[in-house]
Amino acid sequence: MLALYLDGKLELRDLPRPEPRPGEVLIRVKLAGICRTDLEVLTGYHGFQGVPGHEFVGEVAGPADSPWLNSRVVGEINVACGRCSRCLRGLAPHCRQRQVLGLNGRNGAFAHYLTLPAVNLHPVPTEVPDDAAVFTEPLAAALQVLETAEFLPSSRVLVVGDGSLGLQISWILARHGSEVYLVGRYPAHLELARAHGVAVYLEKELTETDFDAVVEASGSPNGLDLALSRVRPRGTVVLKSTYQGRYPLNTAELVVPEVRLLGSRCGPFAAALRLLKKGWIDPRPLIYRRYPLAQGMEAMAYAQEKGVLKVLLECGD
Amino acid sequence: MLALYLDGKLELRDLPRPEPRPGEVLIRVKLAGICRTDLEVLTGYHGFQGVPGHEFVGEVAGPADSPWLNSRVVGEINVACGRCSRCLRGLAPHCRQRQVLGLNGRNGAFAHYLTLPAVNLHPVPTEVPDDAAVFTEPLAAALQVLETAEFLPSSRVLVVGDGSLGLQISWILARHGSEVYLVGRYPAHLELARAHGVAVYLEKELTETDFDAVVEASGSPNGLDLALSRVRPRGTVVLKSTYQGRYPLNTAELVVPEVRLLGSRCGPFAAALRLLKKGWIDPRPLIYRRYPLAQGMEAMAYAQEKGVLKVLLECGD
Repeated sequence: MLALYLDGKLELRDLPRPEPRPGEVLIRVKLAGICRTDLEVLTGYHGFQGVPGHEFVGEVAGPADSPWLNSRVVGEINVACGRCSRCLRGLAPHCRQRQVLGLNGRNGAFAHYLTLPAVNLHPVPTEVPDDAAVFTEPLAAALQVLETAEFLPSSRVLVVGDGSLGLQISWILARHGSEVYLVGRYPAHLELARAHGVAVYLEKELTETDFDAVVEASGSPNGLDLALSRVRPRGTVVLKSTYQGRYPLNTAELVVPEVRLLGSRCGPFAAALRLLKKGWIDPRPLIYRRYPLAQGMEAMAYAQEKGVLKVLLECGD
Repeated sequence: MLALYLDGKLELRDLPRPEPRPGEVLIRVKLAGICRTDLEVLTGYHGFQGVPGHEFVGEVAGPADSPWLNSRVVGEINVACGRCSRCLRGLAPHCRQRQVLGLNGRNGAFAHYLTLPAVNLHPVPTEVPDDAAVFTEPLAAALQVLETAEFLPSSRVLVVGDGSLGLQISWILARHGSEVYLVGRYPAHLELARAHGVAVYLEKELTETDFDAVVEASGSPNGLDLALSRVRPRGTVVLKSTYQGRYPLNTAELVVPEVRLLGSRCGPFAAALRLLKKGWIDPRPLIYRRYPLAQGMEAMAYAQEKGVLKVLLECGD
């Protein structure tokens, strides 16, 4: 099968079709999304070797006796052992032995086929087209903001970063009833938030301060600087971004105003699918281009250009 | 009156007795405690000029028509405007115009007399001797850990730092029912926690990990390193310490395990006084030495020696 493969550098390779292990299914990937994390993976940041890609929608192609056979599915990306103390206390996404699809120890979605444990799967409702379903994983990560911190409908909230994740977070918080501000760099991106009732600002235009909560999704340390300077005392900063290198934290900026800095990662697939099924969130305006998998190298290059939002790979063989 | 005065360097000075402004009272200081923050103030870290000191117990000495006259009192250290948007939303300790006793814009307790707004006062119950009442402010700061984060009686908690604050935090968490560990540097300090049922460890001896919560009260960036390495995924790190310079935060250590890093500062005086009144917390074993105010320079020098816990100044004139 065709796949993008990272081994120091990324290249298109012909790989053997993977064999599902006990409890796993074989999934024929239909669409896969390129995420900023995938671009970081290319730089060696995560120390990953193999097939990248963790955002996908596909169809179960085996084993022949699987009750999932031919189902259209999305899949959670953390593969936990299910037996350790963390798994047994409800922290399976943080299992020490976990593999992460396309990120850690397990080949991912930039291929014709992938394998995942059946317990990771969610059926895609018929109402959700493939090019919306492929956003289930990032939309769940955006929803995790609401799992990480209590956002009240009366909260005044700032989202920092107008990339694909920041925009989806701003949509979700706006639908929650909160007064949402988004600060970003690209007027075209900001328009995608304005349509959801979000107050949008280019950097340097934002003068408001004392936000109840700030979500940092810019991927840049400057975003965390801004978040810490604009949150009110006893407010919350949700950190979705990781940065290469260290962030020089002034601990007095947390301790003196008693600010809460909360890390937030993967989120609830089922909730994301409910929103997609109702059409309450339609992520398709985020799609900039689609490439066949055979042009995966070009797709990855395009995804790295400034201001590009979601790039999809059509992986059907 | 006699006072320690910081103006670039610290010295003993004869100052005019302060005049209470409208709404304020004059307090004759009986005892004052030296805190690590006071030692930081000496280094110029806080940019403070004036009389340091914010832990005290005293007696109201004026004005003559005050209902507080002759009352034995402790006092909250943040003096807020009471009118700004922060004050009006319940964030008075974080008022932008606030003064802080002995730390920011207001002369403190290392003097025969100080002034404070009457609204800042709490009466000291007769059951609480002066040398316990003088711990009200730091004990309240320790209790703020419980206001900052939800600690369950079933939680397994690590306190980092065996200074006066870390010890008091370990006592409070142990009385809360939690399983408490304390890691520190001084066997004599650790004994003061062991007596409260706390499991105590010298650094490097601690092998346990995956704590539900860690409180960093060591005052050292190494303490935050340890906290982040020992908290479980989705666990909480409460940060009581500020550090000079910046802490090099690996944001992946927050985001990937979804850890919560919560700043925590001043706490509830009334709760601290309730615990002191019942004798459920007796902080007096923390007292290493007492000096008359006239020997304040020696007291400050002694308080800076390694392994010294609380040093008190007897400020009565």
